[in-house]
Amino acid sequence: MAATRAYLDYNASAPLIAEARAAMVAALDAANPSSVHTEGRASRRLVEDARRDVARLVNARPEHVIFTSGATEAASTLLTPDWQMGRGAIRMSYLYVSAADHPCLLNGGRFAPAQVTRIGVDRNGVADLEALAAALAQHDKSAGLPLVAIHAANNETGVVQPVGRIAEIVKAAGGVLVVDAVQAAGRIPLDMSAPYADYLILSSHKIGGPKGVGAIVAASDLMMPRPLVNGGGQEKGHRAGTENVAGIAGFGAAARAALAGLDDMDAIARRRDEVEAIVRELAPDAEIFGNGAQRLANTTFFAIPGVKAETAQIAFDLAGVALSAGSACSSGKVGPSHVLKAMGHGDSLGALRVSIGRATGAEEIGAFRVALAGIVARRAGKEKAA
Amino acid sequence: MAATRAYLDYNASAPLIAEARAAMVAALDAANPSSVHTEGRASRRLVEDARRDVARLVNARPEHVIFTSGATEAASTLLTPDWQMGRGAIRMSYLYVSAADHPCLLNGGRFAPAQVTRIGVDRNGVADLEALAAALAQHDKSAGLPLVAIHAANNETGVVQPVGRIAEIVKAAGGVLVVDAVQAAGRIPLDMSAPYADYLILSSHKIGGPKGVGAIVAASDLMMPRPLVNGGGQEKGHRAGTENVAGIAGFGAAARAALAGLDDMDAIARRRDEVEAIVRELAPDAEIFGNGAQRLANTTFFAIPGVKAETAQIAFDLAGVALSAGSACSSGKVGPSHVLKAMGHGDSLGALRVSIGRATGAEEIGAFRVALAGIVARRAGKEKAA
Repeated sequence: MAATRAYLDYNASAPLIAEARAAMVAALDAANPSSVHTEGRASRRLVEDARRDVARLVNARPEHVIFTSGATEAASTLLTPDWQMGRGAIRMSYLYVSAADHPCLLNGGRFAPAQVTRIGVDRNGVADLEALAAALAQHDKSAGLPLVAIHAANNETGVVQPVGRIAEIVKAAGGVLVVDAVQAAGRIPLDMSAPYADYLILSSHKIGGPKGVGAIVAASDLMMPRPLVNGGGQEKGHRAGTENVAGIAGFGAAARAALAGLDDMDAIARRRDEVEAIVRELAPDAEIFGNGAQRLANTTFFAIPGVKAETAQIAFDLAGVALSAGSACSSGKVGPSHVLKAMGHGDSLGALRVSIGRATGAEEIGAFRVALAGIVARRAGKEKAA
Repeated sequence: MAATRAYLDYNASAPLIAEARAAMVAALDAANPSSVHTEGRASRRLVEDARRDVARLVNARPEHVIFTSGATEAASTLLTPDWQMGRGAIRMSYLYVSAADHPCLLNGGRFAPAQVTRIGVDRNGVADLEALAAALAQHDKSAGLPLVAIHAANNETGVVQPVGRIAEIVKAAGGVLVVDAVQAAGRIPLDMSAPYADYLILSSHKIGGPKGVGAIVAASDLMMPRPLVNGGGQEKGHRAGTENVAGIAGFGAAARAALAGLDDMDAIARRRDEVEAIVRELAPDAEIFGNGAQRLANTTFFAIPGVKAETAQIAFDLAGVALSAGSACSSGKVGPSHVLKAMGHGDSLGALRVSIGRATGAEEIGAFRVALAGIVARRAGKEKAA
């Protein structure tokens, strides 16, 4: 990317940090970590070192970290009716997701569509805890346990879910809780040793590591989903396939930096507040979504009346500012954001997401101001002409 | 790895070639290829360029290449009873695999164990075509189509299967053929425009690309398996999850080099023949497996009476030579090779695999000779003492 570009799309993919790049480059020549020769054992050490670093980021035990090819694979693995406890089978008969979840949870993984219920969110995008409790109270345990999956923080709005309280509700109902911590990791502290999720989903490239790597982190090794990817016995049989050693090494380095960087979140929040102050100054009628709830420090999602998000996104791009209208994985698709729809904002022209990171500086914020000023001026010109 | 080491374990993982390394390093900063901004579109181009290169290696159409996290995921995706033709469903009621297949096929993917039949191989490891034809003749098509999966070349022995004839048998029976070309790609020519496989499985790191990337290559887009990994609509809905852009770029570069390198196979075969000549010279009673059949140019798999493969593998390693006793993904496991067992060699002390590549030179072959001479001398010492 040219130095003059302002990249404000960290929630789609955070730029690779220097530490992760160095770790990857150092691991590019690694052999197969299952090989027992010297080269194989050196490769194995890279994987196990990274496992420790990823575990540390969420205060889990390294042996409870299963590397996957990304968060989506982790979700498809965890969202299954078929679980195993040792050699025994455990059945999850029904899946409860949040209506504002990422598509990789919403799709229900290996559950049949008829076995998935969506729990609504309020106007800020926070899960409706009463609706969740009521749904779980109706759950028929004779057919199997209830499985609940929810994001810790929303990819579009940055809104943080009350996972501690959700965990209490799920525990009280005898259920299992999967938490998609893809956007939360490295931005809010996560502690798997406290009552929180039973299983976490992590993605490397959202925390400054490479794409193509993610993890399942379990709170214990009591039970695990029936493997999605079968073959050799890698990852203790939970996920087959030769490990993406360079990617895993990069993920480990990114996790280490993300843990250290949790202290910087106040500085990132101040930058995000600058962005929102610019939006409010240039477009006083703008709506910022989810700002009545706790949000990630790095994300703002807003709509400006009369400004179509898709068009504005292109104008920002032409002005050198990379941001998104909705989430990247659905960028190519037509239609309003399912997150906004779930929040009760169905009629909008779409919204723009600015998501930033530690490297975001005054220059990028200045570029955003200039680009937005142009877009708002064009809106004023159109209104005048009309 | 130290310059003094001889790496003779290409079938476990081929060293990353310079072109793949350069392509990866150049792609490390790529954005999310689903993002519509300038950075996202540049990332998309990297993925699509690689798709063309991978297609070209097997003479397929780029739009028929689906990137996965590796061959194992590709196998778990393809080996399913549930397929789709457009919006319609197609059922495969039974899976036929070869007894000498890699575990990622043998495990049967998403088929229930009772729906999988293993077809035997002869003493050279070549599939028993009559047994396959007989099994397919018994297939009850009222429940669904027969799905056949077989490796193009064996990872342990290098034995090449008669895929053209297998394809004729499968076609005649109205079945679908999946070919695991992980070890064959870049070592023998593959042409998806001719009657061969309906679906190929490829792995990047076996052809000099990075680990953590593979592909499904279809002969047509008529029908596809129900996706294994669900979420965003990446890879035309066939495989969700943000693309491993750097890995894919490295895979593309490796595919380009592998296609160009097919002409070098005679030179590699001569090196492999030198290895076998050394084995025969130092241990005239050694058995070289599969040498009555067509084999890959780069692989030899042999057993020496009185020499336990696992012990010899460690001795080779201490002498600076990396090779394997069986395949890497099962290296940690106890028990004889299922491939040798399927070939009728159940009583051996295990076998040693030497697998080489373009970079393997006289120095590595010399190190192999020195190490093997030591192992054979110790065997002679033991026999004398006994």
